[in-house]
Amino acid sequence: MSLTEVSSVRCFEGTQKVYDHASSATRTTMRFGVYLPDSAKTQELSALLWLSGLTCTHENFVTKAGSQKLACEYGMIVITPDTSPRGLNLPSEDESYDFGSGAGFYLNATQGPWSENYQMENYLIQELIPLIQEHFPIKKGALALSGHSMGGHGALTLSLNHPGLFQSVSAFSPISSPTRCPWGEKALKGYLGEDRALWERHDAACLLKAGKTTAPILVDQGLQDNFLAEQLKPELLQEAAKNSSQVMEFRFRKDFDHSYYYIATFLEEHFQWHQTNLGLK
Amino acid sequence: MSLTEVSSVRCFEGTQKVYDHASSATRTTMRFGVYLPDSAKTQELSALLWLSGLTCTHENFVTKAGSQKLACEYGMIVITPDTSPRGLNLPSEDESYDFGSGAGFYLNATQGPWSENYQMENYLIQELIPLIQEHFPIKKGALALSGHSMGGHGALTLSLNHPGLFQSVSAFSPISSPTRCPWGEKALKGYLGEDRALWERHDAACLLKAGKTTAPILVDQGLQDNFLAEQLKPELLQEAAKNSSQVMEFRFRKDFDHSYYYIATFLEEHFQWHQTNLGLK
Repeated sequence: MSLTEVSSVRCFEGTQKVYDHASSATRTTMRFGVYLPDSAKTQELSALLWLSGLTCTHENFVTKAGSQKLACEYGMIVITPDTSPRGLNLPSEDESYDFGSGAGFYLNATQGPWSENYQMENYLIQELIPLIQEHFPIKKGALALSGHSMGGHGALTLSLNHPGLFQSVSAFSPISSPTRCPWGEKALKGYLGEDRALWERHDAACLLKAGKTTAPILVDQGLQDNFLAEQLKPELLQEAAKNSSQVMEFRFRKDFDHSYYYIATFLEEHFQWHQTNLGLK
Repeated sequence: MSLTEVSSVRCFEGTQKVYDHASSATRTTMRFGVYLPDSAKTQELSALLWLSGLTCTHENFVTKAGSQKLACEYGMIVITPDTSPRGLNLPSEDESYDFGSGAGFYLNATQGPWSENYQMENYLIQELIPLIQEHFPIKKGALALSGHSMGGHGALTLSLNHPGLFQSVSAFSPISSPTRCPWGEKALKGYLGEDRALWERHDAACLLKAGKTTAPILVDQGLQDNFLAEQLKPELLQEAAKNSSQVMEFRFRKDFDHSYYYIATFLEEHFQWHQTNLGLK
């Protein structure tokens, strides 16, 4: 598969690039960012796949998280996909911030009109990961997954549903149990239909309760997060983790909210977490 | 003068705040950002006033530069004003990116309809600096000034026109000689009228040639900057500096452009520069 370079900008000791490519999973052009530390010119590096939250594109994490300096220091390639297909002009696609455009929820829709294109799980697992492994010098068995909010949900569910694919997982303020919060219920009903049994495959707390496990998971949560009680509910994840053999660590941050100011503050701890799990230190 | 808090968010070991206040200089409500490291709770700190470039608000530097971590490490309060008055509905105010809203050029307009409100030099020097000194624990004689592009021009000209006010100065990709580039000519003509002799007070190269000096200046410039040859012209600043007693250092950066990716990369060097000049190390 071929990539079209959209931009290439120097940042710290490396290059921040943006690419477009034709996706057969979404039947659209998909855009993603990749940061390549200069060290990738002479050696294979580990990689971090970052999944963004509602309303985000490939760009939010790239401009606001301070990731490039850390990517150089920790020797990781950072990949930032978009959060949904774009520009389809489906009815109501752009009407709300929490469904449709910018809100793909990292799953494969089964309901029309979304099922034709909103195949974000297939896009990421079957298409983007092989694509980046083909085009960039990513070390085998050294792939970390992280994300924020809806992307935290994506990091948890994709890693639990595809054990062995990622060697380290983390999530900032994830939607812990989408079957039991308004954002999740709206998205799961819209993309998957009324049968709630089908929703559980996309609910990290349900997956843990069903005995699924994956690489070590770090969950990070600010305690002044506006969405904490109604949407994120980390207590459901904690409860599910209790009777699970999943390696899982929770770090709660007093006074911090849901923003990129919070993510930027603790991102280095996540690089350290991944570095340890990837056996790089 | 009173401040109205717009937002307050934890970031690294400090708090990023945004305030509104009534400005008598611009006869509008003006907004600015301030980052307060926690160390400001128990001691006075030095401060960095950051002037942004064309199209920016108080927010661009705050979200994209990675300044908060550095502010903690170097113990500096960071103040980020807006780049113009807002919301006046003057004819053509919002028509172009390089004049009017978001493009105040850090000067006092003399031409109608701008002269009533576009008094950015007065706003910053007579109003904002006293205001921040009143409300935040800023150490006397420890004020640094920096900026980018149009804001680099602002940092150079304001410091040269107000010697003694700032103890350290730096500029990323400044408009070096606004009387001799399209951005500058448009702005100076629009705000100050046809008499080019009046423009020279707002041209850093002219001020240096006229013998003005100020605190030590660091000029930072990417060599892949799209605006280098037509708008920024650092060679005019270098030439003017030759016969000046101004302490001035140029750092050119191979491969870097005009973006915040470039600013974020070298911002720590500027904190170090200011720290040295402010006698903090």
